[in-house]
Amino acid sequence: MDSGELEHPPAEELQVGPILLALADDNRRRVVAELYERSDGERLCASFDLPVSKSSRTRHWRVLREAGLVHQRSIGNGLYMRLRKDDLESRFPGLIQAVVGAP
Amino acid sequence: MDSGELEHPPAEELQVGPILLALADDNRRRVVAELYERSDGERLCASFDLPVSKSSRTRHWRVLREAGLVHQRSIGNGLYMRLRKDDLESRFPGLIQAVVGAP
Repeated sequence: MDSGELEHPPAEELQVGPILLALADDNRRRVVAELYERSDGERLCASFDLPVSKSSRTRHWRVLREAGLVHQRSIGNGLYMRLRKDDLESRFPGLIQAVVGAP
Repeated sequence: MDSGELEHPPAEELQVGPILLALADDNRRRVVAELYERSDGERLCASFDLPVSKSSRTRHWRVLREAGLVHQRSIGNGLYMRLRKDDLESRFPGLIQAVVGAP
């Protein structure tokens, strides 16, 4: 699987509803917050320590990706993820910062 | 019914998860956006023109109120609603502005 097989909505089509729904979940919001701190780079999806089943993890990645919050790609045997920080900031200025900074 | 009978979480207990979940819905987000424009005052709940049933409207008001986005009170026979703008801005700086300004 390469990144071309994964659905990534274009930046100009990102919708705030699915973005907010994706961010409403505590686990997904934690992943976004951790990626936000290192958005210059990518992180191995498997490296996130979430207290959920493997199938739930897979679903969380899909929700994040389809909402347009993250970009995923395969390198070797690993699936990597990065926050689409520039796309998000351009379309929803201040939103991600406000969410990840929330108490 | 006076406002004392309606549950309004205190400002210091507002949680971002329920706030985002409440805002993820298009109708509720529209209500918040309209209140944001006139947050100096209140608006009659019945004055919002939502394309949903009466029971759905009632549920939307409850979700908004329990998340801490709005304050509701009865005056005479009418139920009024205002955005808790100061509480929200104090606890989640920039969040509501980013959401209501989203395309």
